[in-house]
Amino acid sequence: MTDAPSSAHSPVALAQGLIRCPSVTPQEGGALAYLAEILTAAGFTVERPVFSEPGTPDIENLYARLGEGPCLLFAGHTDVVPPGDAAAWRHDPFAGAIEGGELFGRGAVDMKGGIACMLAAVLAFLGRRGPDFGGAIAFLITGDEEGPAVNGTVKLLDWARARGELFAHCLLGEPTNPDTLGEMIKIGRRGSLTANLTVHGVQGHVAYPHRAENPIPGLLRLAQGLLAEPLDAGTAHFDASNLEFTTMDVGNPATNVIPAEARATFNIRFNDLWTPETLAAELERRLAAAAGNTVRYSLDIRPTNSVAFLTQPDAFVEQVADAIEAETGRRPALSTTGGTSDARFIKNACPVIEFGLVGRTMHQIDERVAVADLDRLAAIVGRVLDAYFPQNAATQRQA
Amino acid sequence: MTDAPSSAHSPVALAQGLIRCPSVTPQEGGALAYLAEILTAAGFTVERPVFSEPGTPDIENLYARLGEGPCLLFAGHTDVVPPGDAAAWRHDPFAGAIEGGELFGRGAVDMKGGIACMLAAVLAFLGRRGPDFGGAIAFLITGDEEGPAVNGTVKLLDWARARGELFAHCLLGEPTNPDTLGEMIKIGRRGSLTANLTVHGVQGHVAYPHRAENPIPGLLRLAQGLLAEPLDAGTAHFDASNLEFTTMDVGNPATNVIPAEARATFNIRFNDLWTPETLAAELERRLAAAAGNTVRYSLDIRPTNSVAFLTQPDAFVEQVADAIEAETGRRPALSTTGGTSDARFIKNACPVIEFGLVGRTMHQIDERVAVADLDRLAAIVGRVLDAYFPQNAATQRQA
Repeated sequence: MTDAPSSAHSPVALAQGLIRCPSVTPQEGGALAYLAEILTAAGFTVERPVFSEPGTPDIENLYARLGEGPCLLFAGHTDVVPPGDAAAWRHDPFAGAIEGGELFGRGAVDMKGGIACMLAAVLAFLGRRGPDFGGAIAFLITGDEEGPAVNGTVKLLDWARARGELFAHCLLGEPTNPDTLGEMIKIGRRGSLTANLTVHGVQGHVAYPHRAENPIPGLLRLAQGLLAEPLDAGTAHFDASNLEFTTMDVGNPATNVIPAEARATFNIRFNDLWTPETLAAELERRLAAAAGNTVRYSLDIRPTNSVAFLTQPDAFVEQVADAIEAETGRRPALSTTGGTSDARFIKNACPVIEFGLVGRTMHQIDERVAVADLDRLAAIVGRVLDAYFPQNAATQRQA
Repeated sequence: MTDAPSSAHSPVALAQGLIRCPSVTPQEGGALAYLAEILTAAGFTVERPVFSEPGTPDIENLYARLGEGPCLLFAGHTDVVPPGDAAAWRHDPFAGAIEGGELFGRGAVDMKGGIACMLAAVLAFLGRRGPDFGGAIAFLITGDEEGPAVNGTVKLLDWARARGELFAHCLLGEPTNPDTLGEMIKIGRRGSLTANLTVHGVQGHVAYPHRAENPIPGLLRLAQGLLAEPLDAGTAHFDASNLEFTTMDVGNPATNVIPAEARATFNIRFNDLWTPETLAAELERRLAAAAGNTVRYSLDIRPTNSVAFLTQPDAFVEQVADAIEAETGRRPALSTTGGTSDARFIKNACPVIEFGLVGRTMHQIDERVAVADLDRLAAIVGRVLDAYFPQNAATQRQA
């Protein structure tokens, strides 16, 4: 492998190599071993910590570092979601087939393709500049992003911190572009909070409502109280916080019985105006106002480690945006939309931004990526590396 | 049995005889055979039609008639609900044990006790007056009131009508008194209508609500639209119509997913201002107004044969009320409250009122009735018979 011609380290070849490892969470599937072999051959010191936690599967992870000085961290995950009905795919989801200029396979965009581009760019950069490029490069790759995310990035960052590893900036290669490569960098993410709301009533016969207390109108009232006013109007870099009821359940099959209890669950994606604590207080305030003295309820807010964060646009963000514009002709939007990602953990270690492939087919049957996008993304990362580690500037940099 | 001393035909002895027949719906359990033997011995012509319907159990029923002229019909059911945890009963639910002046057993009040009192009163009346009392008496007893109610009273009435049987009035012996014998006659019942309401949305990820359409706020809106205004303020003999949501279900376990659909079921107990048809139109009107152009929903109203009805207070009602007052010292309220009963079917054959025992323990563990109440109820029915068929007045009556 290490003696393979350079085409073996092209973005598409590396992406195929990764896709062919069936690393459905929590299986390592050979994907981290494949990376380890290439990174070791390229001069990286590679570690393969395995993390455990009762009740969750053991997870393999990878950490690799090369060089001294300010460290640019590339982060990602090799685990993928299951392929679903493999027979429904146009090509075997773990074959890495190419058809019509597109590479098919589970993880093609989320995010084996992204890792392949970062790796190809780093290998090419090291080929151009050699190991003494005036800084450090690290890879922090987990096998537990699509699963419980317990034995992955969080523990890997703790492990690295305990070893004294420091990072200057991080590029996380999640697919960030809705439709076209170059549209969007993510510079932060909203937080996520989930809560269960239960309204307590008194069971009885529908013909004698005065002897019962139907919890459903109470739940309607509390839900209206939560939804009546927007939580906020958004901030400079964030959309408005948003509350969605995800379920509402009574489970009473008897049409002549008033039920004893009604339950609902809601999720809030919140911006940097809120913390989980201030949000909990606001929820309690709204519920108490809506309930008055008549609705008996209980609110159970689930513990969350998903808080809103923002990486303030700085020189690094500009470097990435410049590289994207140079390769694609598009100036990317700086966004904080979408779901959570491991960036919410990495932001505690260093400023982190996310940029990767086009996410349109992620988690779907026939997940796929344009081969040309793989080459463009690798070229973008190459430009970022050149800008981040300028020739002859190593001694002027600060960690 | 027919040669037994008259104490064998006391209300409590007859009630014990019925309770000892384990006639949990749809089992006949010997209860109708027990009645048939006694009624035959007393001179009644007894028929035992069995009715069938695909998908429901075959059900045994009983029809008995004696005499010519205006016919007073006694109606009821011998089937009972299951005893639940028999070990939790103070006495075997099918033993007919007496303790502290109370008769224990499933059906003691609902309504083997009621049938026993009507039968005891009729036997005593025939003993006093003989078979030529100037009218007719009939018993219409089903074994399918607590079950699907498909092969019971409805078909028995059709069967009787086909034979040319006519009834002047009916006394249905369901337990009508909330706490004390004599409190309440039922002279009608509200109708009952059940409907399923479904709101259709578009599934999606909670982080991208603009790409989804959450059906839960739509369901809240429709529910508020249904509940906002009372259906009516009640009428002379009826409480206000009432709508209760009995369940509301989404069944979405994923807290990061906006569901595709939300469902609710509600039941309306409605008075004589409404028919199922006018009510359906009102529901459609309210839903359309609440939905506007934004909520996509479907309403599925279940077929109902439960319409509101009222037996206008007449001489018969007065006779029953007088008899109650004479025996208990209480003038009964003329009520239309509570759940539905077979009176909703009988009212198509003749004016029907309901009066029976105290319903407090019906359907519960340790269902029981005061022996003194059985004697008093039989005495009340005896007074009704005497008033309904006055001495020497037979030729003046009209059918």
